Amino acid sequence: MFDAFLNHISNNFPILFKSRVLLAVSGGIDSVVLLHLLKKADVDFAIAHCNFSLRGKESDQDAKFVEELARALNVPIYIQKFNTKAFALENKVSTQMAARELRYAWFMELCAEHNLSHTITAHHAQDDLETFLINISRASGIEGLTGMTENSDFILRPLLPYSRDQIAAYAEQHAINWREDSSNSTDNYLRNHLRHHAIPALNEASPDFLTQFKKTQTYLHESATLLEDYTAFLFSKIVTQSFKGYELNIPQLLEVPNTKLVLYQLLKGFEFTDWDTIYDLLAAQSGKKVIAGKHRLIRDRDVLLLTEHKVEVQEDFKVTRKDSLINIPGLTLIIDEASQLDIKDNNVAFFDSDQLEFPLTVRKWKEGDIFYPYGMHGKKKISKYFKDNKFSTLDKESAWLLCSGEYIIWIVGERTDNRYKIKSGTTKLVKFTVIYD
Amino acid sequence: MFDAFLNHISNNFPILFKSRVLLAVSGGIDSVVLLHLLKKADVDFAIAHCNFSLRGKESDQDAKFVEELARALNVPIYIQKFNTKAFALENKVSTQMAARELRYAWFMELCAEHNLSHTITAHHAQDDLETFLINISRASGIEGLTGMTENSDFILRPLLPYSRDQIAAYAEQHAINWREDSSNSTDNYLRNHLRHHAIPALNEASPDFLTQFKKTQTYLHESATLLEDYTAFLFSKIVTQSFKGYELNIPQLLEVPNTKLVLYQLLKGFEFTDWDTIYDLLAAQSGKKVIAGKHRLIRDRDVLLLTEHKVEVQEDFKVTRKDSLINIPGLTLIIDEASQLDIKDNNVAFFDSDQLEFPLTVRKWKEGDIFYPYGMHGKKKISKYFKDNKFSTLDKESAWLLCSGEYIIWIVGERTDNRYKIKSGTTKLVKFTVIYD
Repeated sequence: MFDAFLNHISNNFPILFKSRVLLAVSGGIDSVVLLHLLKKADVDFAIAHCNFSLRGKESDQDAKFVEELARALNVPIYIQKFNTKAFALENKVSTQMAARELRYAWFMELCAEHNLSHTITAHHAQDDLETFLINISRASGIEGLTGMTENSDFILRPLLPYSRDQIAAYAEQHAINWREDSSNSTDNYLRNHLRHHAIPALNEASPDFLTQFKKTQTYLHESATLLEDYTAFLFSKIVTQSFKGYELNIPQLLEVPNTKLVLYQLLKGFEFTDWDTIYDLLAAQSGKKVIAGKHRLIRDRDVLLLTEHKVEVQEDFKVTRKDSLINIPGLTLIIDEASQLDIKDNNVAFFDSDQLEFPLTVRKWKEGDIFYPYGMHGKKKISKYFKDNKFSTLDKESAWLLCSGEYIIWIVGERTDNRYKIKSGTTKLVKFTVIYD
Repeated sequence: MFDAFLNHISNNFPILFKSRVLLAVSGGIDSVVLLHLLKKADVDFAIAHCNFSLRGKESDQDAKFVEELARALNVPIYIQKFNTKAFALENKVSTQMAARELRYAWFMELCAEHNLSHTITAHHAQDDLETFLINISRASGIEGLTGMTENSDFILRPLLPYSRDQIAAYAEQHAINWREDSSNSTDNYLRNHLRHHAIPALNEASPDFLTQFKKTQTYLHESATLLEDYTAFLFSKIVTQSFKGYELNIPQLLEVPNTKLVLYQLLKGFEFTDWDTIYDLLAAQSGKKVIAGKHRLIRDRDVLLLTEHKVEVQEDFKVTRKDSLINIPGLTLIIDEASQLDIKDNNVAFFDSDQLEFPLTVRKWKEGDIFYPYGMHGKKKISKYFKDNKFSTLDKESAWLLCSGEYIIWIVGERTDNRYKIKSGTTKLVKFTVIYD
């Protein structure tokens, strides 16, 4: 096996002979065999061993075993003890996930600190098959079925073409000792069961199952790559980014085939789950929305608008006689005294100071709000005003009302109230100017 | 189970209550249980039983069992005996494939003849998992991993959401008899082994493996659907059909991401296997080609041209003094006597009848051919003439030479030979006119 291995790494990982690398060694058969192979190939490397403190004394013995092995082979070694359970609890992830995060973060640190170009792991062909079956048991999509790459920017996996049997044969042939992982954590139960029962059964059913599986996985990886390309293309065709958020153009969405799958493809990175309802937004009226986690998707005329979903704090703002400036989400209100009317646009409003009941309130609208639009005789529901003036869902949400007591005197930046219009002879004016963020 | 089944078919297969259908019954547990379920649900159907003559007396006993069952339940039945082995040999397919082809062809016939709207098969959830694993063992790509659909134009599979266990439980509960298939053909070995060993091991490792697998398979089906959409899009962008064949536009190919995968995606329906060489055509000179089976891909200027690959029959055509018309692949030669020169274009050529050595020959060019181009003093290799005149690979292949004895007197439709030009005083002219197909 060594000659083939040397050939394999010379062809595929020339970097191993040009720079110093970091080898992750658990003490198990795979990483110990790889350690021997790399040493024999005269690769320049240091060892990293993680003690995840998951199996008490056994974990410590693993660390000691790897340390002694490193000394015997004259390879520098870094050992780190982690409180994996605590990290998992703190970050609300599985022990497995915690170990993974801790491990790779530390490897990156070590590489940076000691000028090591890559981390080498001892994953082999069957690891991919185990992960493949585990991910099926979790109803994964294609992304979970494409396997590990031999070669990434940071991690190299030179044993990936080798089977567990080949590795075991090499260990036996060279009388290599390793530590058996007696771990029986629930996370490992599934993997161990597959390793000892399902995978041998698959190999019995079809002796070259693993080889053929590797090809299938390569094809799936290629399909997934093309699917990403298609998604990028669809994104460029359908999605634009505006100050409001991401806008998905509905006519374009309806033009591509399999619109529902395309919607999923574009939005799967978010927390949405109710794809039927999302699809229904395409035929819904403006303002219909789906909220999931921190995001929401709103039908807004010809687009589906994807924005962050902020739980609205219905905070009211007070304006006293002394205030000259009030900061409100989305805008600033400037308050001046004035002696004459000077209305340039809707962003400026004048009121008779004596008619106002200070402190004024700036608040969001609510169902049932009414006012008397300037220039009109009657009253109108705020909601009706919004509708008549074609306010989008977002426009409505970002609207503020300036109120004197119970009365709405201004839809800020929009329209004042007819009852509060300046009468001739008024001398004491208050001027409000709105400046948007 | 019956109530759930009735609910399932009412919701998903309303056609079962509106038209008469055909139920395929092998005599095994799945199809016999489905037969009982459909009868109980008051569906109007006939039974089809195929006797594939693969297990001698056992096959005949299966047929007899199904026939008696049909009589007992008062359901019309059609039985057909096939010589499956002979069909497999004749068509060079596996026994499994032969049985499949014979079966579905006969089902379609029966449906047409007896006005049955659909064929119903008893495939269940685990069949999909078996096929999935079998296809992995054959290194299938995503298309082989997406599973059967419950519902196609022709076949309905109402048991697909049900597990083998559910079906077995129903059979036991209702004391339903069926015929055990003792088949041990090599085709069935793999499926049986998976059924009895690998799949139970997967279910043991993860009790809801089958349910989760069904979801994974649905996602894979969706990914495959999107991939087909992408391929259709790429096809419309990159491929045009011309009289020459399919032309793959090279600049467009180089513009899309993952060109090599895209080439595979566009061409995977053909017999090509050497994808590296095909990819290299993109950087090769005009005329380079890859041949596989009945097709070939040629670099032709800015396109890769996909055409049928005909093994060229280097047939020569004779032109006697009596011939007035010769049909040649791609063109027709008209031969007239003429009394004066009247050259309109390259498609017409005149020769001195006395100078010609009949019968003339029309043949393809070969390496080493030379002639004396009209209007030039020296001789030239035909290959050099082609090159100088920017003949594409296809142009060269479709070129014909008119020869008198050993001498090339005309590259048909192109250029006559200087040695055969009409001298003043020539009175007996032969006129050749070429008409292209």
